[in-house]
Amino acid sequence: MAEMQAYVVSVFVASGLSEIDGRTMAASLVEADLRGTHSHGVIRLPFLVNRLLDGGAKRQPDIRVVNEAPGTALLDGDRALGAITATRAMDLAIEKARAQGIGFVTARNSDFIGTCAHYAMKALPHDMIGIAWTNGFPGMAPWGGRSNTIGNNPIAFAAPSLSHGPIVLDMALSVAAGGRIRLAAKNGEKIPHDWLVDSDGQPTDDPQALAAGGALLPLGYKGYGLAVFGEILCGVLTGSRILGEIPAWFKDTGSAIGNGHLHIAIDIARFVEPEAFKLRMDGLVSLLKATPLMPEVREILLPGERAWRTQQQQEKDGIAVPAPVAADLLALALRLGVTAPASFHSSSFDCTP
Amino acid sequence: MAEMQAYVVSVFVASGLSEIDGRTMAASLVEADLRGTHSHGVIRLPFLVNRLLDGGAKRQPDIRVVNEAPGTALLDGDRALGAITATRAMDLAIEKARAQGIGFVTARNSDFIGTCAHYAMKALPHDMIGIAWTNGFPGMAPWGGRSNTIGNNPIAFAAPSLSHGPIVLDMALSVAAGGRIRLAAKNGEKIPHDWLVDSDGQPTDDPQALAAGGALLPLGYKGYGLAVFGEILCGVLTGSRILGEIPAWFKDTGSAIGNGHLHIAIDIARFVEPEAFKLRMDGLVSLLKATPLMPEVREILLPGERAWRTQQQQEKDGIAVPAPVAADLLALALRLGVTAPASFHSSSFDCTP
Repeated sequence: MAEMQAYVVSVFVASGLSEIDGRTMAASLVEADLRGTHSHGVIRLPFLVNRLLDGGAKRQPDIRVVNEAPGTALLDGDRALGAITATRAMDLAIEKARAQGIGFVTARNSDFIGTCAHYAMKALPHDMIGIAWTNGFPGMAPWGGRSNTIGNNPIAFAAPSLSHGPIVLDMALSVAAGGRIRLAAKNGEKIPHDWLVDSDGQPTDDPQALAAGGALLPLGYKGYGLAVFGEILCGVLTGSRILGEIPAWFKDTGSAIGNGHLHIAIDIARFVEPEAFKLRMDGLVSLLKATPLMPEVREILLPGERAWRTQQQQEKDGIAVPAPVAADLLALALRLGVTAPASFHSSSFDCTP
Repeated sequence: MAEMQAYVVSVFVASGLSEIDGRTMAASLVEADLRGTHSHGVIRLPFLVNRLLDGGAKRQPDIRVVNEAPGTALLDGDRALGAITATRAMDLAIEKARAQGIGFVTARNSDFIGTCAHYAMKALPHDMIGIAWTNGFPGMAPWGGRSNTIGNNPIAFAAPSLSHGPIVLDMALSVAAGGRIRLAAKNGEKIPHDWLVDSDGQPTDDPQALAAGGALLPLGYKGYGLAVFGEILCGVLTGSRILGEIPAWFKDTGSAIGNGHLHIAIDIARFVEPEAFKLRMDGLVSLLKATPLMPEVREILLPGERAWRTQQQQEKDGIAVPAPVAADLLALALRLGVTAPASFHSSSFDCTP
């Protein structure tokens, strides 16, 4: 894992980032892989590098606080890669929470931030609860609409337990992720009827309908409503771009993204004693797991429980990088003149820790 | 509307509340009716009175701050009716937001608070964004479970616009409300297959299955995950009861409820200029409404848009109280020796303003 991290840092440094910003980017990507969220892990590296090389994101950004109160701040990301600004914002939220009980820090003029869970979880070692929310390019239909005119605006919450690992919810507000639909299209599979409408607004089980002008459906009118408040809190409140103003970060690598995000830290000790909180969290887990099960269900899972198991496994066994991704990363290393982990060359898919 | 409000206050005073607490309760109930959320309006009055008369809720509570930081507080509700504690908590959150940019105030030892929207909307006249969240008796299955062991834990967000009224999302985390299923059972109607499972955990379109030991389904695993964080932020963080520890407020009128809730106010001026914010909100509304429509859909609605139209209509025409509810409220007036609005006696269903 250290080798993988070093590789990612060297890729970003070779693309013009400072060493410290490169480390921040690497932490965000490698943690996503470590927790099994491979869609947001090193697979994104070539796209992020293109953002730096094509000028959509700045290599030497000057991130600064543009508005501040004791419990809040608004940062200007100066077009840094999103994880750099988001990490700065979350760290500031934690600092504010230590003094005020809560920190609520937003950012504008930003970029794609990766998994929201990464920032929410930064609160945990401080005995705090963390929340992160971002808006993004319009990849979902509003309730009643048939084209993608609102972001799926993911949100994450993280809270510590005593013996069950971190409880972490990280979710987009569409029924299914666009990536899953594109994968089904590639594999010639059908999809459930409630994921997608075609360009006429008719429900379809054909994943090809997305590329043909279809739209991803929101998680009911409630998911749509939450996405609207994602736009309000991350976009309108921060003076950022919203809805269709936001380009797709992985496609328009030469354009500024200009989205916004929100980071909240809540200091548990200002409410209840943190050890009592964590013990009570274990009680919450036990009570939920005692629920009688649906047929064929083996266990009630808590949010983030599967990711926590994957993390523990991969910390021991190394992160599994699929062969095509390893090949892409090897090509990227050659292009930038940096050293790739030895495992990328081997036929093994594992990058040992 | 003033006559209705006066009637509700006199009912609460006759049940032992102070005049000021009676007014707080009336504001919460009448606003719910005014916005068309009749399920949470004066229809609840007899149950709330029973809570006071049967001793589940205290008539002369001593609500106090038990833990505080500059941006946060934890209140002990001393078993007051929930709307009283929630109003106190939201007012304190607004006060803190004015000084710190954000106020985050929680409460324990509380009771049913009515619509969350009522508290979130209290932030609006202060040019603030409001959020309210509560846990409650277990009326929903966790993801993969087949009995009601978690609350549907409603959450509300409110933000101001310039010319579209308040944008307000108020939602429980189940697919459908229990009340709608009980109504379908009463009317002998079928329900969609994704609302309910029977006591064996099988999907069913028979609303009778709920009373026969079935369970309400959460809004997917995402709705379940949000409900878990409702328990964490409103229950675990406040030292309140959680999950199955919480009795049903409308049934166990002699028992303390002991749930918790959360109130957040965000001062817009600490981020962007409030008038610019509201203008930009109008832009958000216009962009969303310009989305091409699904077949048979006439308009993209914003969260709370229908409630806002109902409110404007009823402010002119008076609140429509259905005849059976008026009859119940008349009986309650007789029982407590207070004067009921004249319209309760008439055959008209309207209570003029």
